[in-house]
Amino acid sequence: MFRIIYNLDDKVPNFIRREQKILKHTFYYSNSIKPVLLNYTIMLNFELQNPVKIFFGKGEIAKLNTQIPKDANILVLYGGGSIKKNGIYEQVTAALKDYNYTEFGGIPANPEYEVLMDALAIIKSEKIDFLLAVGGGSVIDGTKFLASAALYEGDEPWDILDKGIRTEVGMPFGTVLTLPATGTEMNSGSVVSRRELGEKRGMGGPGLFPKFSILDPTVVASIPQRQLANGVTDAFTHVMEQYMTYPIGADLQDRFAESIMSSLVATAPKLMGDASDYTTSANFMWCCTMALNGLIQKGVPNDWAIHAIGHELTALYGIDHARTLAIIAPRHYHHFLDNKKEKLAQYGERVWNITEGSITERAKAAIAKTEAFFHSMDIPTRLSDYTDQYHGTAEKVSETLRERGWVALGEHKAVTPEAVRVIVEGSY
Amino acid sequence: MFRIIYNLDDKVPNFIRREQKILKHTFYYSNSIKPVLLNYTIMLNFELQNPVKIFFGKGEIAKLNTQIPKDANILVLYGGGSIKKNGIYEQVTAALKDYNYTEFGGIPANPEYEVLMDALAIIKSEKIDFLLAVGGGSVIDGTKFLASAALYEGDEPWDILDKGIRTEVGMPFGTVLTLPATGTEMNSGSVVSRRELGEKRGMGGPGLFPKFSILDPTVVASIPQRQLANGVTDAFTHVMEQYMTYPIGADLQDRFAESIMSSLVATAPKLMGDASDYTTSANFMWCCTMALNGLIQKGVPNDWAIHAIGHELTALYGIDHARTLAIIAPRHYHHFLDNKKEKLAQYGERVWNITEGSITERAKAAIAKTEAFFHSMDIPTRLSDYTDQYHGTAEKVSETLRERGWVALGEHKAVTPEAVRVIVEGSY
Repeated sequence: MFRIIYNLDDKVPNFIRREQKILKHTFYYSNSIKPVLLNYTIMLNFELQNPVKIFFGKGEIAKLNTQIPKDANILVLYGGGSIKKNGIYEQVTAALKDYNYTEFGGIPANPEYEVLMDALAIIKSEKIDFLLAVGGGSVIDGTKFLASAALYEGDEPWDILDKGIRTEVGMPFGTVLTLPATGTEMNSGSVVSRRELGEKRGMGGPGLFPKFSILDPTVVASIPQRQLANGVTDAFTHVMEQYMTYPIGADLQDRFAESIMSSLVATAPKLMGDASDYTTSANFMWCCTMALNGLIQKGVPNDWAIHAIGHELTALYGIDHARTLAIIAPRHYHHFLDNKKEKLAQYGERVWNITEGSITERAKAAIAKTEAFFHSMDIPTRLSDYTDQYHGTAEKVSETLRERGWVALGEHKAVTPEAVRVIVEGSY
Repeated sequence: MFRIIYNLDDKVPNFIRREQKILKHTFYYSNSIKPVLLNYTIMLNFELQNPVKIFFGKGEIAKLNTQIPKDANILVLYGGGSIKKNGIYEQVTAALKDYNYTEFGGIPANPEYEVLMDALAIIKSEKIDFLLAVGGGSVIDGTKFLASAALYEGDEPWDILDKGIRTEVGMPFGTVLTLPATGTEMNSGSVVSRRELGEKRGMGGPGLFPKFSILDPTVVASIPQRQLANGVTDAFTHVMEQYMTYPIGADLQDRFAESIMSSLVATAPKLMGDASDYTTSANFMWCCTMALNGLIQKGVPNDWAIHAIGHELTALYGIDHARTLAIIAPRHYHHFLDNKKEKLAQYGERVWNITEGSITERAKAAIAKTEAFFHSMDIPTRLSDYTDQYHGTAEKVSETLRERGWVALGEHKAVTPEAVRVIVEGSY
C-alpha cells in the first residue's frame, strides 16, 4: 500500500525514488530501529517539466472545442452525476456538440478498478481515441488509469499498478475540474483502488499529464461545505508534506510553499462563509493546483509519511482521506519535533506570525495553530471523533505495516512501524 | 521600439495584447491626455502552458547527451568566449563528444541581427537540425531567433520581427544558462537588435520554448559583480512589472511575486559578498527563472512601462538594460502613486516590513527601500550618474515616442508621452 506514494511520478522527487530503490529490500522492525539519516545541506538537483495547458476562469469550458481534435472519438467520464445539477454537464455537452462522444458516468470516490474496467471495455468497443474527465480527483485519476490501460499491450491492466509500470505514452486526455483538492489536474500521478483485493495503488509517468485542464472557479459554489473543508485540508497537507522537513537553504521553494499555506489560511474562512464569491473560489482553486503540480517539491527533501499513515485509517474506518491527514499531521509533527522544529518554527513565524519563545516553543505553537485551523473548518482531529472502535488501531496499523515489509518513510527515513504506532496512538 | 514588449509571448498576458490590438491606432498626445482606465476587479482569465524541461543543479550539464537526439547535427552558439575560461565549454564539449556539432561564437549583448544572419547561413550550409545555446540572455534570445528563422519560408527573416510573425514551430533547441537574469531560458520570448536600422524588436510563439534548459548554479561563481547586480535588478524589476499595479484579489499570484522579491532581497547581499556559495547562487538562479517564466503574470494586470522607457535610455546612452530599470522604476512609481499605492503599501509591508503610516506614506517608504536596494548593489539610480548629457533627455524620449505613434502603456494605459517626459525628467 505504501508504494502508492513512491510510484507517483510527480508527487515524490527523484531522490526519494532513488532512495527507495536502494532501500526497498531493507525492512525496519520496531525492535531494530536503525533509520537511515538523509541529511542534505544544500538544494538538491532536480528536473522539472510540466506540459499541462491550463485554462483558468469563468466560461473557459467553452474552449473545449479548441483543444480536442475535430475528428476525435471521445469518451466523457464523470462521477455520481453532480455535474448534471450544477450546469457543468450542459456547458461540456454544448462545447462538444460537433463531436462524436460517448458518456461513462458513475466513477466512485477512490476510483474503483472494476468500474474502470467497464469503461475500458467501452474504449475498446467504441474505438475511443480521446478521454475527457469531468470531475474531481477520483474521476481524473480514473481517467489517467484508462489513458494508460487503453494503450497497454499486456494482458492484465492491473499489472500497470501492481508492477509499477511507468506510463511513457497514454491515450490523450483532458480534464474539466469540478472539485479543487488533489492537484491531479496538473500532475502525472494517479491512485486507483481495487476493493476485491483491498488494495490502493499508484501509477505515474509522462504519458499521464493531461493535454489540458479547464479550471472554472464558478464550479466551487455548488460544492458541499464538507468537500470544501476536505479540499482545503488536502491541499494544505500536500504543501506541508513537501515543506515540513528540515532547512537546506532552498529559500524560494520555502517561500512558495508558505505562500500557498498563507493563502489557504486567508481564504478558508471566506470559502466556508460564501463559496459563491469569485475571488475566494478562484484563489482556493489555484492554490489547490499549485500545491501539487511538482513546483514546490523540487530541490527539497519531502516527507509524505502523513499520507501513508492516513491511507491506513481510510482503509480501516472509511474516514475521508483529507480528514485522516488532519488526524495524523499534528501527532506526526509532535513525534518528530526534534527533526522538524526549525521548519515548524519558520512556518509558525511566516504563516501564523508566531515570533515569541524558543524554536521548540514556536514549533509547538505552530502545530497547535495548524490543528486549530482544521477545527475552524469543522474537521475533527482525533481518531475517537470518527470511531468508537479506535482502541488497538495503533497496533493494528503498525502490525499491518510490518507484515507488508514496511520501508521506513519520511525525509530522514525515521518513520518506522514503531514510530507509526506511537503517532497513531497519540491520535486517539 | 515599444512593440518589443507587446510581442513577447510569455512576457505580457493575453489581455494586454488584446488591448493593444484595440488601441494600436489610437495615439495619445500630451495636449490631449485621455487614458483608458482598465479597472479589473477580479482575477483575470488566463491560459498557462510551459513545456520547458529544466535540469537544475551542479553537474547537470553532463545530461546534455540524454536530451539531444543521437543523430542530431548541432550548432553550438555562444557569446564572447567567457565559457572557455570558466569550464563550461569543456563540460559541454565533453557531453557532446559522440555528436556531430559545429560552433558559432561571438554573439554580442543585445543579439545583433547581422551576426545572427551569419549563423543562419551556417545552419543552412551545414544542414543543422538542432541548436544549443550556451550563454546568457543574449545568446539564448539570438538562438530563439535562429530557431524561427531556420524554418521560416519567407524571403526576409527580418519580417519575423518587423511584421510580428508568431513562431508556431521552430527548430528544436536547448540551452545551458551561464548568466541568470532575463528568464528567457524558461519562456518563449526573444528580443533582437538591428543596429543598421537602430531597432530592437521582440518575437514570440510556442515554437520558441527551449526543449530543455540546464541551470548549473556553479556558473555563478565566475560572473563579474556588475553582471550579478544587473541580474538581480533585472529579475527584481521583472517581478515588479507583473505585480505593482492595483489589487484584484489574486492572492496567490501576489504572494508568489512577493516571495521572489523577498528572496532576491535576502540573497543579494550574500551574492555580492560571495558568489561561489552554492546555496546563494542556486537561489539567485532559480529566482531569476521564476521571475519571468509566465507563472506570476497569469490572471493579474501587468505594467511593463518601466521596461519600455528604460529601453530608450539604453538606445540613447548605452546604459545597461538593468540599470535603466533602476533609474526609471522609482520615478515611475512616484508619478503613478495614486494608481499604485495599495500594491506599493502591500509590497512595503510584506517585502520590507513597513507597517507604520498611512497607505501613501507606506507606499513612499516602499519606493525608497527599493531604490536603496539598488544602491546596495552599487547600482546608481539617477540618469546624471551615467551621463553628463542628460539635459533634454525627457523631451527627447517623449518626442521619440510621439513620432512612433506611442500607445499609452501601463496597467491603466496612463503612461502617455507626457507622463514619460515627467518620469524621465524626475530621474535626472
